[in-house]
Amino acid sequence: KDSYAVTLLPGDGIGPEITAATKQVLQALATRCNFRIEWKEALIGGAAIDAKNDPFPQESLEQCLASDSVLLACIGGYKWDKNPRELRPETGLLKMRKEMGLFANLRPAKVLPQLIDASTLKREVVEGVDVMVVRELTGDVYFGTPKGIDMVNGQRVGYNNMIYSESEIDRIARVAGDVASKRGGKLCSVDKANVLDVSQLWRDVVTDVITKDFPEVELSHMYVDNAAMQLIRWPKQFDTIVCGNIFGDILSDEASMLVGSLGMLPSASIGESGPGVFEPCHGSAPDIAGQDKANPLAMILSAAMMLQYDLDRPEEAALLEKAVEAALDAGVRTPDLKQDNDGCKLVGCAEMGQVVAKLV
Amino acid sequence: KDSYAVTLLPGDGIGPEITAATKQVLQALATRCNFRIEWKEALIGGAAIDAKNDPFPQESLEQCLASDSVLLACIGGYKWDKNPRELRPETGLLKMRKEMGLFANLRPAKVLPQLIDASTLKREVVEGVDVMVVRELTGDVYFGTPKGIDMVNGQRVGYNNMIYSESEIDRIARVAGDVASKRGGKLCSVDKANVLDVSQLWRDVVTDVITKDFPEVELSHMYVDNAAMQLIRWPKQFDTIVCGNIFGDILSDEASMLVGSLGMLPSASIGESGPGVFEPCHGSAPDIAGQDKANPLAMILSAAMMLQYDLDRPEEAALLEKAVEAALDAGVRTPDLKQDNDGCKLVGCAEMGQVVAKLV
Ligand SMILES: CC(C)[C@H](C(=O)O)[C@@H](O)C(=O)O
Ligand SMILES: CC(C)[C@H](C(=O)O)[C@@H](O)C(=O)O
Repeated sequence: KDSYAVTLLPGDGIGPEITAATKQVLQALATRCNFRIEWKEALIGGAAIDAKNDPFPQESLEQCLASDSVLLACIGGYKWDKNPRELRPETGLLKMRKEMGLFANLRPAKVLPQLIDASTLKREVVEGVDVMVVRELTGDVYFGTPKGIDMVNGQRVGYNNMIYSESEIDRIARVAGDVASKRGGKLCSVDKANVLDVSQLWRDVVTDVITKDFPEVELSHMYVDNAAMQLIRWPKQFDTIVCGNIFGDILSDEASMLVGSLGMLPSASIGESGPGVFEPCHGSAPDIAGQDKANPLAMILSAAMMLQYDLDRPEEAALLEKAVEAALDAGVRTPDLKQDNDGCKLVGCAEMGQVVAKLV
Repeated sequence: KDSYAVTLLPGDGIGPEITAATKQVLQALATRCNFRIEWKEALIGGAAIDAKNDPFPQESLEQCLASDSVLLACIGGYKWDKNPRELRPETGLLKMRKEMGLFANLRPAKVLPQLIDASTLKREVVEGVDVMVVRELTGDVYFGTPKGIDMVNGQRVGYNNMIYSESEIDRIARVAGDVASKRGGKLCSVDKANVLDVSQLWRDVVTDVITKDFPEVELSHMYVDNAAMQLIRWPKQFDTIVCGNIFGDILSDEASMLVGSLGMLPSASIGESGPGVFEPCHGSAPDIAGQDKANPLAMILSAAMMLQYDLDRPEEAALLEKAVEAALDAGVRTPDLKQDNDGCKLVGCAEMGQVVAKLV
């Protein structure tokens, strides 16, 4: 296959700028490597609320499902923060994940030698860190029912069900086992099995799947509180981490800080079959939107994950990652990466895109 | 009042050693400051399972409730790890919290200048950090029902209810407001209100309580994933943090890493009335138990919190804290605190206790 339909979801805030830069880079890569991308755009988040009064309209869903893959920039902004839940940008994101069946979220946190001093952790602690967090994305307390806010004996009570079925745990364990076996071969499953029944089932099923079907993977278990500590104490002990939706939300954001800049962190959300969604971990940064100050590298690296996981072009993915490193080696830095006296040249979002496009 | 009944719960692992050291220090302080402590011991955790087949026997509960305050060392060990849930040390801890009504857990993370290099974070990031995490301790997904592991359509499903009532949120918000107003006057409430109904209620009630009854406290809200990031990115932005049981479990352990050594971190668990329980944040370290290698300072600092919160002796609490700092200034270090070429003297648990006792 040498032609792909890719849906772009530019979203809100800095979304359109980083999308433009990423598209340019992918275009350059396609030309160089002899494949074609057919681009389509669709609405999500605040942009979709403004245009269609729905944070993820049906036509966006259909457009995404009809593509080979989806590149999402970022969503949200102050403007929609006071909206009722069904009209908030985040609700569109959750709807997209659920309706596209994107149950596995892969979030690599890899410390690049060029940016090692950007971390608030000591050099010797983060040097060489390369952790992959595999987060379950369509279950847990995020989607569990019953949920709501009720009146009980004259007072309000709020509740959400933290729930996992065996099959949900089984399939994410298989993704994690597969990922771990292609990386360092070590998988750490994070839960709170000393307190939670749902975690007890999680631990039992993960243990079954990995020991039976991934005997080459070395499995360990860790309580979530301890994992939050160990990620700071000695992150190099981790290779691949697997956890449920809410623990993964917390730990993957924590792990991103090892790298120092959120502006460098890609993610992949994939399902059993069908297109995945690839997006940077950062938000829409409304305060710098439209000022050509955003860092497009996380979205560019998300495009690399798309090449690897959805378009089955691992060589092109590697080429793109190398181009990003080469841009950093060339000494260009967006404002979020720039440090005093680093001898580097400050560039905007568009120029960073051009530099990487030239280097692919 | 100048005589107090204090129950000691030595628990497991290094528990008995650090308890002995702490008792000695408190004895010295009592003598110097003219008050008396009547000591009693009771069983909890593995020790209680071995002796009574119950991780928190009724007689321990009664003993605790009949005291002015309770000092707990630590519980747990490999020996009981495979036990069924009702015969595990942690279950005793949860039972103690619930039955004693200890709904507020205070976990300070204060970076001492003497130990600043023990942290894996850069000096400029942790220098001067002084965060207090106020964690709700008897609600949330820890105790919520329904819960269990059921068969549904031929597969197992595990679930726990993440639930808070208005009154539960109200009372922890008041503790947090009070704590914040006596500290830096800033309170950050952590939740996941963009996804969870229970967090929406949490946010609403905390906002009501603080704006109405603690107008002098500056309140902010943060999503838990962002909080996990910000604690590493720039911890000095925080003064007092308040959160539910599970988010507090994770974030307080993460915050403890700012300090570098778990061996320095005390905690207080208090209720509406009646005795509180004061305990170090660290575990029972079975691998070094009985070898005189443990660090008693976290338990000694927990005793200082007991003096402050339960025995109403803030001056003696301050004196004890100063004695701990003076011991560090005097250059003695237990193995967990010792760093190469720090010019300090390596001491055991008992000797550290003697040094602090002499300094009070
Ligand atoms: C925006 C929010 C709903 C979302 C989540 O919690 O999953 C975000 O934090 C993320 O991690 O992608
Ligand atoms: C041992 C465990 C049940 C406990 C908890 O999760 O509350 C511990 O981690 C703590 O923080 O005191």
